[in-house]
Amino acid sequence: MKKYQLMAPGPTPVPSEVLLAMAQPMIHHRTPQYETLFVEVRAGLKKVFQTEADVLPLACSGTGAMEAAVVNTLSAGDTVAAIRAGKFGDRWVEICRAYGVNVVELAAPFGHSVPAERVAETLRTHKGVKAVLTQHSESSTGVLHDVRGYAAVTRGTDTMLIVDAVSSLGIADLPMDAWGADLVVSGSQKGLMLPPGVAFCALGEKAWAAAKTSTLPKYYFNLAEERKAVVKNEAHFTPAVSIIVGLREVLRMIETEGLRNVFKRHDRLARATRAGVEALGLELFAKATPSPALTAVAAPKGVDSEKVVAAYSKTHNITIAGGQGEMKGKVFRLGHMGYAAEFDVIVALAALEQVLSDLGQPVDFGASIGAAQKIFAEKS
Amino acid sequence: MKKYQLMAPGPTPVPSEVLLAMAQPMIHHRTPQYETLFVEVRAGLKKVFQTEADVLPLACSGTGAMEAAVVNTLSAGDTVAAIRAGKFGDRWVEICRAYGVNVVELAAPFGHSVPAERVAETLRTHKGVKAVLTQHSESSTGVLHDVRGYAAVTRGTDTMLIVDAVSSLGIADLPMDAWGADLVVSGSQKGLMLPPGVAFCALGEKAWAAAKTSTLPKYYFNLAEERKAVVKNEAHFTPAVSIIVGLREVLRMIETEGLRNVFKRHDRLARATRAGVEALGLELFAKATPSPALTAVAAPKGVDSEKVVAAYSKTHNITIAGGQGEMKGKVFRLGHMGYAAEFDVIVALAALEQVLSDLGQPVDFGASIGAAQKIFAEKS
Repeated sequence: MKKYQLMAPGPTPVPSEVLLAMAQPMIHHRTPQYETLFVEVRAGLKKVFQTEADVLPLACSGTGAMEAAVVNTLSAGDTVAAIRAGKFGDRWVEICRAYGVNVVELAAPFGHSVPAERVAETLRTHKGVKAVLTQHSESSTGVLHDVRGYAAVTRGTDTMLIVDAVSSLGIADLPMDAWGADLVVSGSQKGLMLPPGVAFCALGEKAWAAAKTSTLPKYYFNLAEERKAVVKNEAHFTPAVSIIVGLREVLRMIETEGLRNVFKRHDRLARATRAGVEALGLELFAKATPSPALTAVAAPKGVDSEKVVAAYSKTHNITIAGGQGEMKGKVFRLGHMGYAAEFDVIVALAALEQVLSDLGQPVDFGASIGAAQKIFAEKS
Repeated sequence: MKKYQLMAPGPTPVPSEVLLAMAQPMIHHRTPQYETLFVEVRAGLKKVFQTEADVLPLACSGTGAMEAAVVNTLSAGDTVAAIRAGKFGDRWVEICRAYGVNVVELAAPFGHSVPAERVAETLRTHKGVKAVLTQHSESSTGVLHDVRGYAAVTRGTDTMLIVDAVSSLGIADLPMDAWGADLVVSGSQKGLMLPPGVAFCALGEKAWAAAKTSTLPKYYFNLAEERKAVVKNEAHFTPAVSIIVGLREVLRMIETEGLRNVFKRHDRLARATRAGVEALGLELFAKATPSPALTAVAAPKGVDSEKVVAAYSKTHNITIAGGQGEMKGKVFRLGHMGYAAEFDVIVALAALEQVLSDLGQPVDFGASIGAAQKIFAEKS
């Protein structure tokens, strides 16, 4: 018997309690029952997004919410600046271009980040940039971008900061209001430990003001209409009811653990994973601040990272992820977000030692575990 | 104890077997496991849509798939004709206008339909109409539009027929290829007995040809990109994995029952419901062919239909639906689609007798049940 384990950087495992809550009989979304559910979800989402603004759930994946952010705040011919240092940075650029929005690319090699000073410089040299678009956690490279620094640049200006927090919400601290992010996007299947199918947009005042003048076409993703429903504890269109039911359970779990403790847990899991990986002589793919959501590891010299992913699956029944796009074959990625705890990291590292050895790499068995254990032994 | 029953025209009850299948541990969507799952789902969807074309699942509600149909086949400035005889007819018009598509409205009073001859006449008098958009089952009024007749008009012409089959797929016969519908849209939460959160687009050759010249902006709903993924048994963006898992179970159930038998069952449930309602002296809201998915009932004179809905809920723990928009207060709607069987209709009617009596209406107790039983006693 090999126990099935999902250790990819999303979708992440869903706690059994949440799966069973979602397995309850279906309810209708235009009823007092749904309203009671949504009142609680609405309040909990504000806490997790760390904002006074209403968080708007949409029935779509994270990409849909990214598109909603663009089409609700921008117009064709507008110019934005986009941090482009991974596959999800590419996505911002592609969405903007699909809608006729001009993009000034703030590119960095995959695995690196873009310093806030470069954002400031861009805004000085390109007048009228409507928004800076970035990931918080770029899950294709395992890098955490400096959202706090970018917000310090855009705050108090007419430029919005639009943040893809799909793989950072409930994982890395992102106090939307305190930092001054204007629009934060996230999804259900990462830190929120749910199946994919719901994504979120939270808009601050600057973003709502931009929404008033945005002329890009939208209907399903019309956030002004969605907000009218949300303030009445309803949904504009049929919501993904079962995932919203699960969301209430997840928000209760996060409330019980405490949001600061959730961040601390992810930080420990990430540091332990990195220590373990490095103890085996492997190199992290992230050359900038690493994301606490996942660890991207450069494949050992001469080893195709797809073989590492395949060995995890075939030999150990563990799903991890490989590299995307140009990183395919060069990177494998270990997720440690959402419903992830210390012994999950131990298992991931134990499997890694076995996998590397099976692939003919020299392995000092136990070395990665020892390194991780030292992190876990720290007083938190 | 009052057993909870969901008898609204969607979302509909989800079978326990399906709920439990969806409660299994989350899997990743870029894995051999998902591919195996999707191969089966892909084949099953073609059977239910009665088409050789690939059916593209999207993570969104039915409205998202309606928008996908528009933005993938049309361009700003195009002219379409839309059957507008209910709230979902309104939606086609609203989506088209949001994207700068001109709409020739083929309007009928709510509760009525538009004959195929009027569609033919419109195409004769308005040259260059790119598409006719319609519902199959207009679930706000309980009317089934004549999709077969409309298809006979558009077949062999350059005009596409785009059909919202959200509340008819797996309920009323709609042989897409045989009739010549060019684009069929549906959702997960009606005939497919699943939670809301997945919708579908199936495009025939004429629709794919139109997609090549369509210039409306799209990214999340880019169906050409989605098809590239689907033919590899993948999804372009993160799919709503748990609902796709449930979909496999549902497709197996439909295969076991047989699609023709599924249609027959819905026809019997609908006829029995109508007979029961009429036996109580109530009037059907549908003056045209009634939909087998639901029965819309005109509120008795002097009774606000919202009171009927509230009494079903408060006194009997049964969720039905009221009227939407201008029909609010005038109509209540009983769903009998998806995971619905004969004794569900008996329960809905028994509750109706109690509700009407409680609201001070004269009721011949048992009359509605007797009328329904006569339908069920027919040899099928």
